Amino acid sequence: MGIRLGDNQYGKAEVRLVRINRETDVHQIKDVNVSSQLRGDFEPVHSAGDNSPCIPTDTQKNTVYALAKENGGVGAIEDFALLLARHFVSGFEHVNGARQEVEEYSWDRIPTQDGPHDHSFVRRGGETRTTVVTKEHGEEWVVSGFTGLTVLKSTGSEFHGYPKTRYTTLPEVTDRILATDVSARWRYTSHDIDWDKTYESVKAIMLEQFANTHSYALQQTLYAMGQAVLEAHPEIAEIKFSMPNNHHFLVDLSPFGLDNPNEVFFAADRPYGLIEATVERDDAPEAGRAWDTVPKFV
Amino acid sequence: MGIRLGDNQYGKAEVRLVRINRETDVHQIKDVNVSSQLRGDFEPVHSAGDNSPCIPTDTQKNTVYALAKENGGVGAIEDFALLLARHFVSGFEHVNGARQEVEEYSWDRIPTQDGPHDHSFVRRGGETRTTVVTKEHGEEWVVSGFTGLTVLKSTGSEFHGYPKTRYTTLPEVTDRILATDVSARWRYTSHDIDWDKTYESVKAIMLEQFANTHSYALQQTLYAMGQAVLEAHPEIAEIKFSMPNNHHFLVDLSPFGLDNPNEVFFAADRPYGLIEATVERDDAPEAGRAWDTVPKFV
Amino acid sequence: MGIRLGDNQYGKAEVRLVRINRETDVHQIKDVNVSSQLRGDFEPVHSAGDNSPCIPTDTQKNTVYALAKENGGVGAIEDFALLLARHFVSGFEHVNGARQEVEEYSWDRIPTQDGPHDHSFVRRGGETRTTVVTKEHGEEWVVSGFTGLTVLKSTGSEFHGYPKTRYTTLPEVTDRILATDVSARWRYTSHDIDWDKTYESVKAIMLEQFANTHSYALQQTLYAMGQAVLEAHPEIAEIKFSMPNNHHFLVDLSPFGLDNPNEVFFAADRPYGLIEATVERDDAPEAGRAWDTVPKFV
Amino acid sequence: MGIRLGDNQYGKAEVRLVRINRETDVHQIKDVNVSSQLRGDFEPVHSAGDNSPCIPTDTQKNTVYALAKENGGVGAIEDFALLLARHFVSGFEHVNGARQEVEEYSWDRIPTQDGPHDHSFVRRGGETRTTVVTKEHGEEWVVSGFTGLTVLKSTGSEFHGYPKTRYTTLPEVTDRILATDVSARWRYTSHDIDWDKTYESVKAIMLEQFANTHSYALQQTLYAMGQAVLEAHPEIAEIKFSMPNNHHFLVDLSPFGLDNPNEVFFAADRPYGLIEATVERDDAPEAGRAWDTVPKFV
Repeated sequence: MGIRLGDNQYGKAEVRLVRINRETDVHQIKDVNVSSQLRGDFEPVHSAGDNSPCIPTDTQKNTVYALAKENGGVGAIEDFALLLARHFVSGFEHVNGARQEVEEYSWDRIPTQDGPHDHSFVRRGGETRTTVVTKEHGEEWVVSGFTGLTVLKSTGSEFHGYPKTRYTTLPEVTDRILATDVSARWRYTSHDIDWDKTYESVKAIMLEQFANTHSYALQQTLYAMGQAVLEAHPEIAEIKFSMPNNHHFLVDLSPFGLDNPNEVFFAADRPYGLIEATVERDDAPEAGRAWDTVPKFV
Repeated sequence: MGIRLGDNQYGKAEVRLVRINRETDVHQIKDVNVSSQLRGDFEPVHSAGDNSPCIPTDTQKNTVYALAKENGGVGAIEDFALLLARHFVSGFEHVNGARQEVEEYSWDRIPTQDGPHDHSFVRRGGETRTTVVTKEHGEEWVVSGFTGLTVLKSTGSEFHGYPKTRYTTLPEVTDRILATDVSARWRYTSHDIDWDKTYESVKAIMLEQFANTHSYALQQTLYAMGQAVLEAHPEIAEIKFSMPNNHHFLVDLSPFGLDNPNEVFFAADRPYGLIEATVERDDAPEAGRAWDTVPKFV
Repeated sequence: MGIRLGDNQYGKAEVRLVRINRETDVHQIKDVNVSSQLRGDFEPVHSAGDNSPCIPTDTQKNTVYALAKENGGVGAIEDFALLLARHFVSGFEHVNGARQEVEEYSWDRIPTQDGPHDHSFVRRGGETRTTVVTKEHGEEWVVSGFTGLTVLKSTGSEFHGYPKTRYTTLPEVTDRILATDVSARWRYTSHDIDWDKTYESVKAIMLEQFANTHSYALQQTLYAMGQAVLEAHPEIAEIKFSMPNNHHFLVDLSPFGLDNPNEVFFAADRPYGLIEATVERDDAPEAGRAWDTVPKFV
Repeated sequence: MGIRLGDNQYGKAEVRLVRINRETDVHQIKDVNVSSQLRGDFEPVHSAGDNSPCIPTDTQKNTVYALAKENGGVGAIEDFALLLARHFVSGFEHVNGARQEVEEYSWDRIPTQDGPHDHSFVRRGGETRTTVVTKEHGEEWVVSGFTGLTVLKSTGSEFHGYPKTRYTTLPEVTDRILATDVSARWRYTSHDIDWDKTYESVKAIMLEQFANTHSYALQQTLYAMGQAVLEAHPEIAEIKFSMPNNHHFLVDLSPFGLDNPNEVFFAADRPYGLIEATVERDDAPEAGRAWDTVPKFV
């Protein structure tokens, strides 16, 4: 019987990087949050406090900033994460893996009377774009996605036909609000991708499916969103969704002599339904370590 | 010597209300957060637990929902807050004041191949619109504003010429990122206003001034934003701003043999500068109790 | 008609300072968050971007750190805030006021088999101690308090006897859970105080009153807490409370054939009741500018 | 080529339950947050909106409350999670798995002059205790832990001996502050455990190791904490840690003519180091699905 070190990784989390491209007077802004993690033979650090193999997390941070300069910019976050992962794994013999996560926040140009401003921006809000690149020895996996895309349908959603048990009190409804914050992550099977264009397409398809699917269950809406993306994007093998059911309860106004034909709702915080599922191709290549440290269901 | 009750108010905070207008198949959504507070003769509640004057906070909540139905909708949040304030003060002899705060979250229609969707929405993000209506005896004050409008200029901002003291280490700069989250609240002197149109105008003017002011200090930018609004809107007496200086520090890449001509920045969290100021008309009518429970500087 | 600068202040917010006293092997830790604001003649900064009177917020931050060293430590947060305020106002002719806010987080020594550890600590959680010192020209005001003291009574709380109106649906109860997060701020009339000892006493009195008051309304509990503190502490002129009513709703288990004699509760998030009141001496000296930028009711 | 449903689960998240035991006048409080998820044959719900197999999330919520009553209380959170998991899996043929997560918040009795109060409590703060029970067909796994145990050493921590590369700027130090928020989860190999006693023991061992380990790397401290727990608790197979390095930077006071012998620190927010590792027995039984939806590294 012995005690040993198992899986491990370490690095610098949440390196906030704003990269301005000033090649012309019309500046470009890239606003990202980078978390760099390395894997490899770090047993002596743990067992003996021997730091000879330990690339400091501070060095990882410096590398993020330096490569954002040397690379001529950040580019698509998938490319930047791949750049970082390859840099670390190729640079040190005992580093055989890396996990590079990048979040991106969007900005719009401020509209002025003279048109969109050259160098002034307003943060867009809305969803946060994400990518997690995992590299282990020779292999690389790219899982991209977003969090916090909040959507709502004011009709076109029903819920009934479920089993009635001792603990059932929920009434069946044929018209309700359906609302959720979509978190989605999808695994690419190719890395020769127009990442930005694909991202916009995936998001647009999901929004359109959410809007146009007459829903009998949030699960059904989720599945329709995933199916439509997979049909349109052969370079995506699978999509994992985590979608809370943001309950909007119809307020009972009858004690006040008022009816309420789906007009006045209480938007509740907790508890909430939580629907999580993978939509996948039946012939998708193995996921390998793509999801190892990506929360499968958050 | 005696001990007594001083200023007090009570009510129900953060009543989350989503109001759907379904008069046609093209639904409208209004998503608000209402906090209702009452003032008046509530001394017996405090000193003796005598609840005979105490309109329960639960009743205040019910009233919010009922009036959202009876009123045919929420309308502009300023009108809804005035409606609530007048309802409470006129309804109970011992209630002589009310504070009604409403926050509003914006939604866009989901774009589909058939155009903007009839009843499916995506939350916009960006700033939160606010209003605080204070009513005391016969008088009413409306203070509207927003929080969380995040803006950034990648150039057109300098900072120098300040006193150098024993504790000064900051280097002067002639080109820096200027970034802030604008929180603004303005006091109306008329209540016969197209609230929605005015809101959009105020916000647009502030954005344009932020963009077009060549800045030597965040204070100067703040003042320019307030001045331009007051010049365009005679119905506004004063504006209070709270604007953090969201520091973006230029990363020193020289140890790596790289220059950094304002391209690579570290976006810091804390500490941050905090600039707070009022821009006002010199002939503005008295503020009365308008600001009593509106944080002057947050 | 003209437009002008009104009230204003600026500074560095949330300067995180950890000060270790290492005079002996038994280290002491002080963990605080300092927000420094200055007031004075800063009109040129706003109107013209003329920074000649502008003590940079960066200098204010440096001063916090330097004085934490020069002063031999932080000491009671009230003393540190007074030290900072006096430093800034006495150091610059055009600075005629300062607002210094300090929050403090508590740590305990880690218990080991050899007793409390010399230099290892675990953060306590619980409430955050606060002070806001305001200095204007010759005068100084100290308002201390805390936020986030979460308390709950599982019985000894009733609520009934309130007016029944058209919008009343709340049932009367003679036994309920009473729960709140106490935020309190009190104004001292002397500054020759054992701040730490007084803080502990005030908190203990409030807790004891919360526990021992049989409550007919949260307002009554609040008042009893304030009254007891004022009776015991003549150096305190008034106390302002902001206390949410953290609703714990009895779950209706009757559909499942179960009774629920105040045993199973749903702890709700929003909306919540919000009770805010001042308890004061009728012969208290004027508050002056003590509360100007302290949220009266939060 | 086809598209299909992959892994999935659904349920009600964050069911806030406060359970009061009133058998005697000395009440007991249990304050938990339950997230219930079911797995099984739910394909028709996703593909066709056919809810015949769908136990509503509302029913799951009701079950949590009902079982908290029927069971005579919550008991140890591990036992309550097992109870729920077994209830759902045994109750429905097509439900073949469950994931039940429970968080627990601690309360202390309010100290009064008459001793600890019978029915008044103050929330303790500090860490949140957690458990995740996974049940699949016949097997059950229990992974318990905590989040948010914040600790700090003011000395007894060094960091040096690491590789110097092109991107290294970090100076070596032989005395620094070491601070972290410990998140730990451990897998039990027996379910016949005194859960509460074991929890307290694991936490005490971790704290003692953090305090007494002279640290050359946070990795080393982490490993020592895990090793000591495994040596003392044969019923634990492995422990996964996620520990940020909460950087405390020594402030450079030399521009002000002051030295700073590890006394004045800036506590930084982001970025932070992040150390994640498993400490395990080499003869531990297979983990099975224990970690499937427990974030391996958060």
